[in-house]
Amino acid sequence: MAAIVLCVGNRNGRFAAKVLMSSSKGARRSVNSHMSLFSEPPINTVVSPVGAGLYCRGAGVRFASRLAGGRTADARFKRNTLVAAGAAIVAGFVSGFSHFQKAEMASRIAKDKEESEILEKCKGFMSAPVTDVEVLQQRKGEMSSRMEMLIMETQAAFCQAIEEVDGNKFKVDRWQRKEGGGGISCVLQNGKVFEKAGVNVSVVYGNLTEEAAKQMRSRGKVLKGKDGKLPFCAMGVSSVIHPHNPHIPTVHFNYRYFEIEEADGSKQWWFGGGTDLTPVYIDQDDAVHFHGTLKEACDKHHAQYYPDFKKWCDKYFYIRHRGETRGIGGIFFDDLDQPSQEEAFSFVKSCADTVVPCYLPIVHKHLNASFSAEQKEWQQVRRGRYVEFNLVYDRGVKFGLATPGSRIESILMSLPLTARWEYMHEPPKGSQEAEMLEVLRNPKDWV
Amino acid sequence: MAAIVLCVGNRNGRFAAKVLMSSSKGARRSVNSHMSLFSEPPINTVVSPVGAGLYCRGAGVRFASRLAGGRTADARFKRNTLVAAGAAIVAGFVSGFSHFQKAEMASRIAKDKEESEILEKCKGFMSAPVTDVEVLQQRKGEMSSRMEMLIMETQAAFCQAIEEVDGNKFKVDRWQRKEGGGGISCVLQNGKVFEKAGVNVSVVYGNLTEEAAKQMRSRGKVLKGKDGKLPFCAMGVSSVIHPHNPHIPTVHFNYRYFEIEEADGSKQWWFGGGTDLTPVYIDQDDAVHFHGTLKEACDKHHAQYYPDFKKWCDKYFYIRHRGETRGIGGIFFDDLDQPSQEEAFSFVKSCADTVVPCYLPIVHKHLNASFSAEQKEWQQVRRGRYVEFNLVYDRGVKFGLATPGSRIESILMSLPLTARWEYMHEPPKGSQEAEMLEVLRNPKDWV
Repeated sequence: MAAIVLCVGNRNGRFAAKVLMSSSKGARRSVNSHMSLFSEPPINTVVSPVGAGLYCRGAGVRFASRLAGGRTADARFKRNTLVAAGAAIVAGFVSGFSHFQKAEMASRIAKDKEESEILEKCKGFMSAPVTDVEVLQQRKGEMSSRMEMLIMETQAAFCQAIEEVDGNKFKVDRWQRKEGGGGISCVLQNGKVFEKAGVNVSVVYGNLTEEAAKQMRSRGKVLKGKDGKLPFCAMGVSSVIHPHNPHIPTVHFNYRYFEIEEADGSKQWWFGGGTDLTPVYIDQDDAVHFHGTLKEACDKHHAQYYPDFKKWCDKYFYIRHRGETRGIGGIFFDDLDQPSQEEAFSFVKSCADTVVPCYLPIVHKHLNASFSAEQKEWQQVRRGRYVEFNLVYDRGVKFGLATPGSRIESILMSLPLTARWEYMHEPPKGSQEAEMLEVLRNPKDWV
Repeated sequence: MAAIVLCVGNRNGRFAAKVLMSSSKGARRSVNSHMSLFSEPPINTVVSPVGAGLYCRGAGVRFASRLAGGRTADARFKRNTLVAAGAAIVAGFVSGFSHFQKAEMASRIAKDKEESEILEKCKGFMSAPVTDVEVLQQRKGEMSSRMEMLIMETQAAFCQAIEEVDGNKFKVDRWQRKEGGGGISCVLQNGKVFEKAGVNVSVVYGNLTEEAAKQMRSRGKVLKGKDGKLPFCAMGVSSVIHPHNPHIPTVHFNYRYFEIEEADGSKQWWFGGGTDLTPVYIDQDDAVHFHGTLKEACDKHHAQYYPDFKKWCDKYFYIRHRGETRGIGGIFFDDLDQPSQEEAFSFVKSCADTVVPCYLPIVHKHLNASFSAEQKEWQQVRRGRYVEFNLVYDRGVKFGLATPGSRIESILMSLPLTARWEYMHEPPKGSQEAEMLEVLRNPKDWV
């Protein structure tokens, strides 16, 4: 969890959040706007008269901050019809234009279409993206914009799937990082199926020291900054889902992108991420399904990805002082800057697209499984180990807690609602609990 | 918690544990002897014929390992009458001796008396000390022996007081550290009054690297080792008590002693420790009693001790990422090597002697206080913060988890049985919970 996320400091209009949209379903969501970003009146689409292109400033769709219960605000949904109307107006002029003008206009229409696609996608998000939609539209070819769209899409798709199973809605918090950037934290707590479900997006930027930059790369590459400072940008989506039923495993995923600008102006970039499963009881079929789905996504890109990243995952999620892994793993990778930015992004997209098919079938399978008080207690003990890993070892959490301006509630939303520490807990030999522990002590190959 | 404890490697007979004693009350205790230390038959007192002094090898009092329930063993109590009998036999010969012989004999009797005092004290301990009783007798003047006796006494007195309130007995685990030393962990879990009570003694020794030695001192004094290695010895008693009732606060204390031998043979030594209180609801009288008792103990030794160590405590138990202290503090000190070893030890003894009078009156006062489900939930949220402090910041826990051969169950027995993490938990203004938070955000002077 704890996607610490950043973006090179020359983006303008961040957090003005003038172009906003709600859920495509028009559902009423609980939205917290801590920074009162949404207290301005709606601004309608503006058709620029001087060729800078038809662009949207406030698509007429927005979340209005309303003080209900002290902290929550309802999302107000207003369909934007002006984008389409604007395109039609432009199209009406095309007939009387020269060939040159026609070509220019055709290219502008294509551009408008792309831009309206971005806007259309945004409507399905849990909240407006961290970066202004107009900025995302203007820079739609840049990796940071494409990745921000991907993490927003992943958050929305996963939240929607979780809401459908649970029957309850996520609480959506938009937050701002004083030093640069912000995020969208979605939390569903004490639901029908899920004890705590958190899906977080963050887009953070600013300056790093050379030392901090080195720490951010797991392979510790040395980066040269201007006067020791390195403008950076980081973004990611991360999630941890803790269900009530001990037969439904906990899942975690995190996909992230970093950019760092060196003194000579060159950009270092890399991707990281992974998806891993933490069952309370081992279910062979679940494990095979989970790993198989990940393997399939990996195999489309490189035959070595799954075996390498599966091993990396087992190594990363290892609770050293307990001599056991946190769960049954999945995949984990960092510092991915090969073979090309395009192919690396495409791989990350494949991974992000699997989070729903990896997990949801397992949730549905065990939805109505009965469990005993003893099984619930074993779940609580395993939750304690989850907390130990996250607070003692997780690089993201450690980095987050030590970074001034981090949003602690988003970093620690990976912690379960409840956990337990029994002194000298050791399941009886031959029990299902002992079987689980055996797998955690000796990671298996599932596919 | 997590007294990481060590002792210079030239002690002999460690863990042979031939001289053992049970509770002076003859109570049946649950004792785990993981190392099968107690499987030999009792060895009676031996009166040495060649002047090496009357010393006890197995005072006829021992814990016998009996496999009940797979892991527990009953303590078998057998009164030792042979020490007194031996002294009487020696006394019978005195009349026929020369003046020189008489003086020698008198001195030997005085020594025997001191040794039998050590043995007598040991009978009240939760288990045999980590160091052989005969070694403690032979080296009774050395600080490491005196401190080991003090931590064992403190453990016994505190455990006894907790058992009296709770009505249940501690589970006693003796454990051995492969690299040198061991400890005695006493845990009472799911009692009538206490959810989890842990009182741990450890005595650890071996070699430290110069870097590790530097880390152990909070002021980071540089120590020169022979080939970079420093023989060290550390011992301490530590405890965390988590009650069920949210009106009874959690208490923590830890008193410890370190010795490090430098390349030139000189010994560096220092004491550390503290006692602090973590209430769930603020009670002015409790806070005044707790701090007042500590202040009284400190004032006997130096007027600056209480104010300085109170501040240090607030600073140490600070959850930086939350901007709040763990509790209402108490005292905390480290690296105490002044004004003399004798006076420093005397101060530590005064502190250790206050743990029962600091805490037990507060327990008794709230023993039958009623509480609501909401109050229990707030306690659980505060427990979550306790876990955060211990896993993220506590130097002892961090050092322990990173030290190979540490006994993880003893280090983590400070964690509560249950804890809770609510996303964005903020008590309503004017509530008792908000009042507690206010104190944690702005530490007060109580006396």
